[in-house]
This record gives sequence, C-alpha cells and structure tokens, in this order.
Amino acid sequence: MEDKNMLMIPGPTPVPESVLLAMAKHPIGHRSGDFSKVIAELTENLKWLHQTKNDVLMLTASGTGAMEAGIINFLSPGDRVIVGDNGKFGERWAKVAKAFNFNVEIVKAEWGKPLDPEEFRAKLSADKDKTIKAVIITHSETSTGVLNDLETINKYVKEHGEALIIVDAVTSLGAFNIPTDEWGLDVVGSGSQKGYMIPPGLGFVSVSPKAWQAYKTATTPRFYLDLGKYKKATDEDSSPFTPPINLMYGLQVALQMMKREGLESIFSRHQRLTRATREAMKALGLPLFAPDTCASPAITAVAPTVVDAEKIRSLVKKKFDIVLAGGQDHLKGQIFRIGHLGFSGERDILTAVAAIETSLVELGYDGVKSGAGIAAAASVFAGK
Amino acid sequence: MEDKNMLMIPGPTPVPESVLLAMAKHPIGHRSGDFSKVIAELTENLKWLHQTKNDVLMLTASGTGAMEAGIINFLSPGDRVIVGDNGKFGERWAKVAKAFNFNVEIVKAEWGKPLDPEEFRAKLSADKDKTIKAVIITHSETSTGVLNDLETINKYVKEHGEALIIVDAVTSLGAFNIPTDEWGLDVVGSGSQKGYMIPPGLGFVSVSPKAWQAYKTATTPRFYLDLGKYKKATDEDSSPFTPPINLMYGLQVALQMMKREGLESIFSRHQRLTRATREAMKALGLPLFAPDTCASPAITAVAPTVVDAEKIRSLVKKKFDIVLAGGQDHLKGQIFRIGHLGFSGERDILTAVAAIETSLVELGYDGVKSGAGIAAAASVFAGK
Repeated sequence: MEDKNMLMIPGPTPVPESVLLAMAKHPIGHRSGDFSKVIAELTENLKWLHQTKNDVLMLTASGTGAMEAGIINFLSPGDRVIVGDNGKFGERWAKVAKAFNFNVEIVKAEWGKPLDPEEFRAKLSADKDKTIKAVIITHSETSTGVLNDLETINKYVKEHGEALIIVDAVTSLGAFNIPTDEWGLDVVGSGSQKGYMIPPGLGFVSVSPKAWQAYKTATTPRFYLDLGKYKKATDEDSSPFTPPINLMYGLQVALQMMKREGLESIFSRHQRLTRATREAMKALGLPLFAPDTCASPAITAVAPTVVDAEKIRSLVKKKFDIVLAGGQDHLKGQIFRIGHLGFSGERDILTAVAAIETSLVELGYDGVKSGAGIAAAASVFAGK
Repeated sequence: MEDKNMLMIPGPTPVPESVLLAMAKHPIGHRSGDFSKVIAELTENLKWLHQTKNDVLMLTASGTGAMEAGIINFLSPGDRVIVGDNGKFGERWAKVAKAFNFNVEIVKAEWGKPLDPEEFRAKLSADKDKTIKAVIITHSETSTGVLNDLETINKYVKEHGEALIIVDAVTSLGAFNIPTDEWGLDVVGSGSQKGYMIPPGLGFVSVSPKAWQAYKTATTPRFYLDLGKYKKATDEDSSPFTPPINLMYGLQVALQMMKREGLESIFSRHQRLTRATREAMKALGLPLFAPDTCASPAITAVAPTVVDAEKIRSLVKKKFDIVLAGGQDHLKGQIFRIGHLGFSGERDILTAVAAIETSLVELGYDGVKSGAGIAAAASVFAGK
C-alpha cells in the first residue's frame, strides 16, 4: 500500500511523530540567545545519554564523519593503531585509519563472530614501549548483528595505560549500557538515525580529558572535523559552523522522551525486543547469524538455509510494507536483518514476526509451524 | 511576541511551509529504490540550478564542510594556491588551505571592498612555470555584503590555463547568475540554508572534468570528504554514507519551486530586493557598507554613523520580531546586515524597511524622514 512503509532496518530507524513535527518548525538564527539555550539543553542531555562528564560534541555529519573526527583528531601519521574488524564497519575504520596514514594493525574475526578480546590483550601486553596509540572498536557491528565485548577489550586497553580507546557506538548508544566515565572510554562516536530516534544528519563524539591531551600533539590535518573548534564553541553554547537547526529541534524532543523513559528502561526494552526476535526466529526454524552470547541489541541477522533470504525479505516488503535490511557485501542474499533499535516496541516485533511467519507459509516453506514465532515472542514478553 | 520570529539574516534563510512539511515525513530507507528516485531527481535539478553538466554532489555537512571538500580533494601538501580574502569567509578558506599545508598566497582587500581582479591577473600572468594549482574565491562575501567579480577573476584563471578555479558560492548560488559551464568553473561549493530555501545540514559541490583530473594525483588525506566516493555513489543514484533523508525531502520541494519560478526570475527578484533595500537605506540616511557596484544579491550591510547599529538591530528585534544580522569580528557593533536571500519577496523588504524606519524614529534619530525608506523601496518595485 502507498505510504504504509514500516522501517525495521538498523537506520534510519522509526521517528516519533512529535520529533517529526518539531523538525517542521521554522528555523531560528543559530547565533541567537534562544538557540544557545537549545544547544545547552542538548549538550546536557547528550552527557546524560553518554553517562559522562566528558565533552559531547555535535557535528553536521553522518556517523562515519563523526567516527572519522573521533579518530583523526587524536593521532598523527605513522601512529600505531589497532583496529578490530569483524564486519563492514570495523573494515571501514581500518580504511579511514589507512587513508590518514596511520600504522594500522587489524585484529580480525569472521563476519558473524565476535572479536576475541585475548588478541587485543596479547598485542597490548606485548607493547612494552607503549607504541600503540589507540584501539578502535566497533561495539555493535551493524552488518552482522554482533555485539563485541567492549568492556573486556577496554579493560586491556586500560591495563596498557597509554593507548586511547575509540569506540564506534553508532548502533549501540541508546540501546545498550555504555557507562562512558565508569569504563573510561576516551572517544565514543554515534549518529542520529539510530538509538537517537531522529533522522540522519547529525553525528556525535564524546571526548575524554586524556583524548584532549592527545589532541594537543596530533598533527593529522583537519579543519571542518577539528573537534577543538567544536569544544570551544560548545563551551559557549554555540557551534563552530552553521548547525542543522531543524534536526536539533528533533533531537531536543527525542532526548526529552528518552529521559522520561530512563536509561535502564531503554536498555531492558532493547534486550527484550532482541530476545523476542531471536526466540521467534528460532521457533520458525530460521538460523541466527550471530550467537546469543554476542547478540546486538540493535539488529538481528537471520541466515535462512532452506528458504532464500531475499525472497523472504521482498515478500515481507511487498505484502506487508515492512522494510527489513538485506546482507551487505559478501552476505548479500545470505542473510536478512531485523532492526529493533530506537523507537521500537513490542508491537513492532510482533508485527514483523507475524509478517515473516506468514511469508514463510506463502513461500511454501515446510519447516514453519504457523504461530510458533508469535508464541515464542509472546513468551519472552510475558517474562517467561 | 512569542513565535512571531521573522528571519532576515544571510542564513538560515526563511523556509517555505511546503518544504517544512516535506521534512516532517517519515524517513524511508536510503538504500531503497524509492529513495534512489529522489536522489536522481535532486541530482538533475541541482545540475539545472548550477547550469552545468558537471557532477553536483551532496554532502551531509555545512557550507564550510562542502568548501573544504572542494579544496582538499584537488590539491596536495605544498601546492601553491591563491586565496582571495576580503572578509570572514575568504579568511576562512585561507585557514583551511593552511591547515592542509598548501602553499597559500593571499590576495587581500579591505572588508567592504571588492577583490581587485588585476592582482589575480598579475600573479597568474607572472606564473610562467604554472606553479599555481588553484585560485579560491568567495563570490558573495556574507560578512560584508560584497560581491566579488568572479567573472573577471575567472577569465584570468582561464588565461593561465592550469590553475583550477574554486568558488565559494554559498550565498550567491540561487541568487546571482553563475553559469558554471559557460564560465568553466571547476569547483563550486554551496550550502542548503541559503538560496536553496531549506534548513542547514546539506552541502553541495560541483566538480568539473578538469578538477577530476587533479583529483587523481591529489594526495591530501581524506575519507568522509572524499568526493570520489560521492561521485561513484551519485552515478548510481545513491550516497556513500547515510544521507540526511528528511532534508533531502525538503530540497526536493524547494528545487521544484525554484524550477517553477525559473532562474532568470529568481535572479531578477534578488536584484530587485537588493536595490530596494539599498535605496531605502540611502533614503533613511543610513550609509551602506559596500558600494553599489559590488552589492551582494544576498545581503546588504548597513553602517550607521549617527545611530548605533546594535541599537537599531535590537529594537527591530524587540518591537517587530525581525532578526537582522550583526557585524562579525571587528565589525561587531559597526554594521547590521539585512538578508534578502532565498525565500524572500518584496513584502519582506517593505516590512523590514518599515520596521527600521520606525525604530529610527523611536531612537530619536533626527536624520530620518519618516516614510522615506518605504517610498524609495516602492519606487524600485514600481520599476522607476
């Protein structure tokens, strides 16, 4: 049906109507006192979301732009960096680091498997001369639905003592507990079209005092993505360049909603949606791409063996106007991905599961026991 | 009055209601066929606006981000570049070029005066070894209301034959005739919150085949702002990174409106508004900061001598909720600036002039002949 689109991809995620309407307001001057108040409120609430007293800076950029800023501001050409790569985004940060001529060492894991923290420990504990300047980790790997064990990897980075920990939290922030200050995360990058529940266009970077120390000597050239300029402006409730005013109106409403829900409630909702989705797929006989032990709270990747992944995905789109994500790169056609990030509730999971179930029946898949997916999800939602 | 804000600054500019409402639509997936159609339409209409067959690329970035991309993609550290600087933005491009270690030579003019094309001619014609790789020009200098003579400067760049011409058209595109192909402009940068009539958050860069040649050998490191990635994606009606979907919905409507109005009509409207504003200020005895011969079609800077610029500006804001821009940097308190860019019509000019006139009376300024400003504007609008 026309105009009946329902998004269940890992971004853009669904946007609340109150956010959309806030974005439809006339812009005001970004150098006005009234807009300074908006920036002040946003900054305070972003710190709340990041569980930090560090600076949290807003950039007109996608998540990739925010992550690039989070990498290049604290490093110089030739610096040794360790990049975790077990999916499309880990791969991307390695490309960024190479583009800026850092000395990149990659810790790899197969797509669908988590990074092994012990590989990081080995490299870090062997580095007696403290030549490792940073460890770059994708927390929730959007391409595979794997949540990497940031807490443990970060523990080894802390034991090293010198290296910065730079985290891609693009699809984990606002979905999973990331206590920035408690863990001592130096740089955390994220993007608006994910847990923030607003459309794409804004990127965020949190920066620790230790990272600001590294900033002082980092020689990688930068101007638009120079975070020092953003800090200086943010300290004055301002922005270094014209900010995306209307997206920030939307962010204002979204962060107020998140505060009313509360962090614990947001995280447990994402856990519940993740578990219900996974149990439902298992009940339908559809194998999950990532194991339960490292399940992303943002996205569940499903790797059907008997039925074609793309056939399920396109039927769900055609019949029910539900948009699921396909596989990326070599996983194209191998998996489909169900987003349950941000403005997603139990109703959305039931809807998607019911649609997938019905599509399996229509595709003549023998293995499906009609109703089994919904029964499994219902059981999770009933707390069983 | 609450919620009665009227923007007459050089950006953000007023946004049509139809654009705001388009931005309030639910986002769809940016990798969907439906969104590819949006990108294809936008790209075609952007080329129309730029009067070019060159690539026109969309970035999630402010105008500064777009201009930085337009500079760093085509140059290598040590490259000799000439930067015109007669205001805050010319100054900024020199800073960008220095940040990326280019060999920067500045052609300066006083703020409020235009760049002298002959200074460019002298440098370019003396460069027998063709060491000058690029000339960077701010077309309309937003900080002063000066329109630089891009056509003549560009003629000298063409005579040189090797150097690229890189143009900041942030407040001139969509306000003044910029025939990209006819003039052979290599790189033209712009931003959404100006002539485009949409809120900030999108930057644009047009790139000529000659600039793409330079791209191949340019070694300045880049990833998020790597325009090659944007070209590759745009050629497939896609985007390299998640684009600001809702702003692009707004852009779609705005470009359709612009096409209905037609380029000639848009340019003559801006000329009319500029002349009316200037004649009105003269009639009120308020000196203009830039001479008529180089008046920006986007903004008029007024430099009152007897009355305090900030007093006028704050009274106009307080009594009439009209936002005028102040002076930047050393011009703070010296000038105020009236924006007449984008979604601005004759009614807006009459309103602003009437408000300024009335404020002058209230401030007890003896020189004002009540009604003289409106009379002067009316005369321009009547075609006299």
